[in-house]
Amino acid sequence: MVNTSAGQLRYSDLGERLRAPMITRLMNDTLSRAGLISLAAGFTAPETLPVPEVAVAVADLLKQQNAAEFLQYGMNAGRPGLRQAVIDRLRNMPGETGVDGLSARNVMLTTGSQQALYLAMQVLCSPGDRVLVEAPSYFVFLELLAGLGVEPVSIPVLADGSTDLEGLKELLHTWRARGELARLKAVYIGTYYANPSSRCWPSAEKAALGGLLRELSPCPVVLEDAAYRELYYKDFHAAPSVFSLPEYNGLPVLYCGTFTKSLATGLKVGYAVCNHQPLLDKLLHLKGHHDFGSAHFNQAIVEHIVASGEYDRLLARTRAYYQRKMEAFDTALNRAGLRAAGWQWASPLGGLLLWARAPRGMQTSFDSPFYNACLAANILYVPGDLCFANGHPHDCIRLSIGGVKEAQMDEAASALVRATRSVAD
Amino acid sequence: MVNTSAGQLRYSDLGERLRAPMITRLMNDTLSRAGLISLAAGFTAPETLPVPEVAVAVADLLKQQNAAEFLQYGMNAGRPGLRQAVIDRLRNMPGETGVDGLSARNVMLTTGSQQALYLAMQVLCSPGDRVLVEAPSYFVFLELLAGLGVEPVSIPVLADGSTDLEGLKELLHTWRARGELARLKAVYIGTYYANPSSRCWPSAEKAALGGLLRELSPCPVVLEDAAYRELYYKDFHAAPSVFSLPEYNGLPVLYCGTFTKSLATGLKVGYAVCNHQPLLDKLLHLKGHHDFGSAHFNQAIVEHIVASGEYDRLLARTRAYYQRKMEAFDTALNRAGLRAAGWQWASPLGGLLLWARAPRGMQTSFDSPFYNACLAANILYVPGDLCFANGHPHDCIRLSIGGVKEAQMDEAASALVRATRSVAD
Repeated sequence: MVNTSAGQLRYSDLGERLRAPMITRLMNDTLSRAGLISLAAGFTAPETLPVPEVAVAVADLLKQQNAAEFLQYGMNAGRPGLRQAVIDRLRNMPGETGVDGLSARNVMLTTGSQQALYLAMQVLCSPGDRVLVEAPSYFVFLELLAGLGVEPVSIPVLADGSTDLEGLKELLHTWRARGELARLKAVYIGTYYANPSSRCWPSAEKAALGGLLRELSPCPVVLEDAAYRELYYKDFHAAPSVFSLPEYNGLPVLYCGTFTKSLATGLKVGYAVCNHQPLLDKLLHLKGHHDFGSAHFNQAIVEHIVASGEYDRLLARTRAYYQRKMEAFDTALNRAGLRAAGWQWASPLGGLLLWARAPRGMQTSFDSPFYNACLAANILYVPGDLCFANGHPHDCIRLSIGGVKEAQMDEAASALVRATRSVAD
Repeated sequence: MVNTSAGQLRYSDLGERLRAPMITRLMNDTLSRAGLISLAAGFTAPETLPVPEVAVAVADLLKQQNAAEFLQYGMNAGRPGLRQAVIDRLRNMPGETGVDGLSARNVMLTTGSQQALYLAMQVLCSPGDRVLVEAPSYFVFLELLAGLGVEPVSIPVLADGSTDLEGLKELLHTWRARGELARLKAVYIGTYYANPSSRCWPSAEKAALGGLLRELSPCPVVLEDAAYRELYYKDFHAAPSVFSLPEYNGLPVLYCGTFTKSLATGLKVGYAVCNHQPLLDKLLHLKGHHDFGSAHFNQAIVEHIVASGEYDRLLARTRAYYQRKMEAFDTALNRAGLRAAGWQWASPLGGLLLWARAPRGMQTSFDSPFYNACLAANILYVPGDLCFANGHPHDCIRLSIGGVKEAQMDEAASALVRATRSVAD
């Protein structure tokens, strides 16, 4: 008995706004083609997933006298031990001189860092409010804003992708003049090997932004997304979090991180660190409504793997793995002649994503000739326009190395070059 | 560096509405007293938690050739195998003749069934909308409605706790006359050993409600909460789900269940079955924003335990355990003289909760003399007024047997009796 006669339901305003996420389109394009090489999916590489380590951790946990505890409900905010570990790790990172005043009580564990982003937006933004985002920004974040009826506005950027401070000042000035500054609720920045650009923010740029935001009244919440911070290849990115930059003193901050990308996507343990207790309380109240605590067992597993030192050993292995894989991918793209065909990209220094710009005049959107040519050659990428608040430019692509096999890289690279030529002809 | 200078943030309308959940008050009262016997917490009994079974399942999964897959992202809707198992189990329950048209595609796996309830309310209800609930109803559900600005309205009940159909007809008639019927978006009923009443809905009562709801235009979504359905003590409750009652034909239904209470709270795997594809699509779009999929590893563990037949063996053990424990508790309450002191309750036939009504004129709310007397005697319960849409009556309590030890039952029962007498004096 499937009811269809009920017909059109009356949804909430939010329900009416919801659209099929772009990821659904990408998945449909994936599933409809056998043998497709997906450079679109945000999967991590199976080779990096800690199969024996999780097996050992679970066996260790479940032979303890208090084993049942790990299969019991946990606290809404998450396991105290893992929350402490999150703070300790953050404090011990180079340059993090501003974390001393924070404790485990400033940490909320979530179902991936995605949940923290959603909770924050739901608590801060009513429909019609604004959030400043990067150009490009994380496309799932842009989609959740659309669901909430929130307007994302790009931070103006210079030609090299860095913040155009003068442009941003002008924008804020315009909003102030129009009495619209109160609609700006948050500033969302991915500061370490960000999705999709793999860009890192230098300290000076981050500090300059803070200095500018501090002057605003009312001041927006700074959402620093550091999901890929621990996935640097060779060198730890020197810029500390905004907690440790004096220019952010007095600003409410939500710093989001995760063990999802760096340890295991299937465990989905993320976190947020918040320096503003009333805001964190609101987030926790709302989390109490969403699920009153993410799965506790997973938090116990991650806590055990972190505490045993295994996490750091795994990270070292994973970093080396992705460094080698990204270098191989970069090499394959060059060898196939993608740069010669007019594409430009900066070789990433961390993370899983390569962000490339097409030759002048070429479009990369869904259903563009290039997209279709790639699909015909069994190659899937994320069209770059999905990652911009205003939906353009249309000439970038996001390529993920997580799911692709090294043996397929030359084939994928050649296909991208052939598709480029077929469109240029 | 903890920022406090930022002062008052500007939250969203929802953010402004959020209040500390009652569970926080209960937890604070718990944590502030060593040796407290908590009859309030919704924990399951540690003795029922499947420690060796999860250890075996994880070891089995992680020695498979495709082990890494279990630690990888899953689908937003959840693992297809577990979604199929949910449908198969539902179809195989006695009396479920109406499930044949449903498939794994009608199932969404969630972080506990709580998440499904939240997603449904967010997709359906704008502030000012209404939801019909039972009297009493699940208090976390009432709190999430308050957060969303949704008005819960009690379904009128007869003295025996069953639906007052004439009263409900009148209520709906009034709303129709006032042009307010479109504000009614959903009807939320706990039909099997419900939280907090442990009541089951007889088929006839459920059918009568369906017949009434069917006549409404526009029609509300039926949320059937079956979280405790598999935790019957002796006999499976004969009434089938609303899917199998012809009176619900044409009504959009979201049937929520979970492996949380029946298997392991720490794994937090819940689900919803929906017969209305556009509604389910909306729920999945929104889930894509919340977390784009609950933890996949947990779903793989549950799927394995269900497929191996271990789940059914565990259920049989858990049912017997709770039956014995609830009988012991019931006996302890009687032996201590709680009925003699004027309390009334129906002995539950399933679940973990006992719902009792105080002697006439006695109050049980937070900070009432009885509440304080219980707290002084190191006994914590859930005040019943939290479970009513309109916040009263104030003379009920919810007692959970999940966390209490059998050796403590006599002490708890005596304390309740002493507190009753101290207040009556």
